[in-house]
Amino acid sequence: MPSQSTGDMSPAEFRDAAARLTEWAAHYLDTVEQRPVHHAVVPGLVRSALPAQLPEEGASFDVILGDVDRVLMQGVTHWNHPGFMAYFPSSGSGPGVLGEFMTAVLNQQAMLWSTSPAASELEDVVLDWLRQLLSLPSQFEGACHEGGSASNLHAVAAAVAAAVPEFRARGLAGRPGLARPCVYASAHAHASIAKAAVFLGLGYEALRTVPVDDRFRLRPADLTAQIAADRRAGWLPVAVVATVGTTSTGSVDPVAAIADVCATERLWLHVDASYGGPAALVPRCAPMFEGIARADSVVINPHKWLFTPLDLSVFYCRRFEVLRELLHVAPEYLAGGDPPGVRNVKDTGIALGRRFRALKLWMVLRYFGTAGLRARIAAHLDLATTFAAWVDADRRFERMAPVSLSVVCFRVASHDSPPDADALDRLNAELLRRVNARGEVFLSSTRLRGRFTLRLAIGHVRTSSGHVARAWDSIRWTVDELFRGHTQGRQA
Amino acid sequence: MPSQSTGDMSPAEFRDAAARLTEWAAHYLDTVEQRPVHHAVVPGLVRSALPAQLPEEGASFDVILGDVDRVLMQGVTHWNHPGFMAYFPSSGSGPGVLGEFMTAVLNQQAMLWSTSPAASELEDVVLDWLRQLLSLPSQFEGACHEGGSASNLHAVAAAVAAAVPEFRARGLAGRPGLARPCVYASAHAHASIAKAAVFLGLGYEALRTVPVDDRFRLRPADLTAQIAADRRAGWLPVAVVATVGTTSTGSVDPVAAIADVCATERLWLHVDASYGGPAALVPRCAPMFEGIARADSVVINPHKWLFTPLDLSVFYCRRFEVLRELLHVAPEYLAGGDPPGVRNVKDTGIALGRRFRALKLWMVLRYFGTAGLRARIAAHLDLATTFAAWVDADRRFERMAPVSLSVVCFRVASHDSPPDADALDRLNAELLRRVNARGEVFLSSTRLRGRFTLRLAIGHVRTSSGHVARAWDSIRWTVDELFRGHTQGRQA
Repeated sequence: MPSQSTGDMSPAEFRDAAARLTEWAAHYLDTVEQRPVHHAVVPGLVRSALPAQLPEEGASFDVILGDVDRVLMQGVTHWNHPGFMAYFPSSGSGPGVLGEFMTAVLNQQAMLWSTSPAASELEDVVLDWLRQLLSLPSQFEGACHEGGSASNLHAVAAAVAAAVPEFRARGLAGRPGLARPCVYASAHAHASIAKAAVFLGLGYEALRTVPVDDRFRLRPADLTAQIAADRRAGWLPVAVVATVGTTSTGSVDPVAAIADVCATERLWLHVDASYGGPAALVPRCAPMFEGIARADSVVINPHKWLFTPLDLSVFYCRRFEVLRELLHVAPEYLAGGDPPGVRNVKDTGIALGRRFRALKLWMVLRYFGTAGLRARIAAHLDLATTFAAWVDADRRFERMAPVSLSVVCFRVASHDSPPDADALDRLNAELLRRVNARGEVFLSSTRLRGRFTLRLAIGHVRTSSGHVARAWDSIRWTVDELFRGHTQGRQA
Repeated sequence: MPSQSTGDMSPAEFRDAAARLTEWAAHYLDTVEQRPVHHAVVPGLVRSALPAQLPEEGASFDVILGDVDRVLMQGVTHWNHPGFMAYFPSSGSGPGVLGEFMTAVLNQQAMLWSTSPAASELEDVVLDWLRQLLSLPSQFEGACHEGGSASNLHAVAAAVAAAVPEFRARGLAGRPGLARPCVYASAHAHASIAKAAVFLGLGYEALRTVPVDDRFRLRPADLTAQIAADRRAGWLPVAVVATVGTTSTGSVDPVAAIADVCATERLWLHVDASYGGPAALVPRCAPMFEGIARADSVVINPHKWLFTPLDLSVFYCRRFEVLRELLHVAPEYLAGGDPPGVRNVKDTGIALGRRFRALKLWMVLRYFGTAGLRARIAAHLDLATTFAAWVDADRRFERMAPVSLSVVCFRVASHDSPPDADALDRLNAELLRRVNARGEVFLSSTRLRGRFTLRLAIGHVRTSSGHVARAWDSIRWTVDELFRGHTQGRQA
């Protein structure tokens, strides 16, 4: 509790509180596996346990930590649990957590180079390391963003600015009689591409959804045909988004073939490798990245599959000057702060400044090293392949998509269950519900070809073969239970 | 160093490393005042001290921490130094730092309510507390963003969506023959408003710069005239941005009068209180906030003047459904995750999910309490007033703007210095350079009425009257030194 009406928590109090929190954190991370992965609260429970107004008097850190244990922890879905295999696991790790702690301690705001040379230059260094891991040419310049959605927004903005010279000055409204820009992505691209089209004033209609093949990959022939049709109809195609690791299935669009189309059609190629990017570390995944060096922009999210806590997405751009010219501002209150020629972050994105996000990524990369990162990503790929083989070997299940990276899509198959497709969807939804309710594993779902599909994604640094085996056991036991109930139901 | 090719840092290693980092952090915060505020490195020094490629093998946390001390710390501008009075201090505090540490440990990703009920509902609670502190009506719903630029972008997007019903579907390019939307802000509004106009496809031209009065406040009469002229010229006025605490001077636009204009003209009123918002806690500042309750959207950045480490900006909107409808996405891979009726964050902004940003703000608010926050903000206002009085009492200086909040704009006056205006600018720039080089204080600059102006901003939780007195001493000594040099130069 603050002892006076001025100043911060004292250094001694900070030291004590941080020591308590360290113990709390180490215990949490050490025991998280003993908790159910998924929260078990009803809506409103957390909110109703807290006062509706901020109390007039302060509270000690002990009291606050007590509220965390008593009120908040019940509402935590444990993204740190090695059984978290839903969505994409956001994979924190020890060095990443410590990096974030240090970021908060130093509280650097890197808008100008001079407001934090350390943050500015470490960002250069670490994004250059990551660029090399992705085998992107040195022309690519990187910038840190909050998440993949923000990075994808900047990618589409750069593409529009490159194609529409008057975009900065006149925008899209001041072009009477000129063609409307449009953007291409597969039906399995991330939802943020649609958000970007809306936010940038292109409109939802300007997002062209290109069909996928039977492996959920964008079909280049359909892309070409769609571009031609749009040009005939008076549109201005500006960009194609290729995804390396789609959210539903982890499918990988044929980047090289799409790059060919973009070269022919003179379109911006954006590669959204938010999730899949780290697979570039693994030699056997090299074919998935063929053509990525010909992209105009690339996104990778270290907070997805590179053991870095939320939030950190990296946007690479081959023609960064396009974005810099679009977003350049030079207010008087920032003039003169920097020596000439330095790179500052204020013109690299919507944010004027940003916190020292690169620090935690640097710590993660340094701690594990290339070899350690490669081993972990390769192990995750193997775990997914193993799980898929188990699914394939059990005739009660069917796999719903190829395993390209670390996502496995599957469900209870039709031959041992109700023949009606909707009833089968309901059965699989119930399977998911019950598996998640057991608390050992947390999976999510999607729809593929219109059918409800379970989805298991490997990505947490602490997920091992034992956890995947337990997930499979949990799924099989639950299916046994469901089928017993089903049979009993029919017999009753 | 990772001992094996799988898994995370062990719990024991994490505990040890966190304990070392805690000691490091406590020592840093305890001794930061003994360091020069401003870095003293040349461009490239940090970068050149680090390897150009990520090493193959990992490194222990001790080695990494050694690199921090040896390489990074020399490039740190100490935003934590109580003498940091440049730009707006980004004011961390002990409870905020600990909150960020816990955020990284829990690594919650709140895209759906169910992926973190704790993060979703604590955000509701803490943004409701903050709303009450700002005396905003309960219709205002809040959302967390990375910074003021992102929040202002969402505000302008909401305004456009409210005025242009086809914005989501058709964008701004698909409206041939229809009026172009435009946005109004004073010449002293933040640069992010211009970025927002560009990014949303309105174009830079669509930003109307309204003149300010002699106190750097937007002139409502000029606003009205400009709107009328634009309507006659075929534009579609959509929004006015009023700033409570401009960046250059801390001036406060007349919100109530602007709200009247917006009501008459049926325009969206956005109040950018990114910096000034916390002054609402102090009763004597109430007049500055008159009319804010009539806004359509309001932004406040707890990472500026509410003792919360970077990054956290809060965007409030009275008509949040406008933004939610604009940004709503419902991909199959997120379907079914939430019970009906809950609020999730995925439709509240560009980001699909976000980390548990509200946790640190909750800890800061709880630790200090309303009384503790109010006392600290009031003390900062007093410190600025005191410093301004010192400037006013010394005839060598002139004040360049009224002190509305905690920013003081001043410079060496013309009567004791070269009569040429440009020479006087150079003298003041040299004064700033020398003061900052002394290392006791770090000030920034702006230009007011075209002239170079020094700018002192109070906002760090640990800045006390002693630090402000030392800043004043440092400035006066430097002026003495400059004038001695000047006089000697003339005598030579």
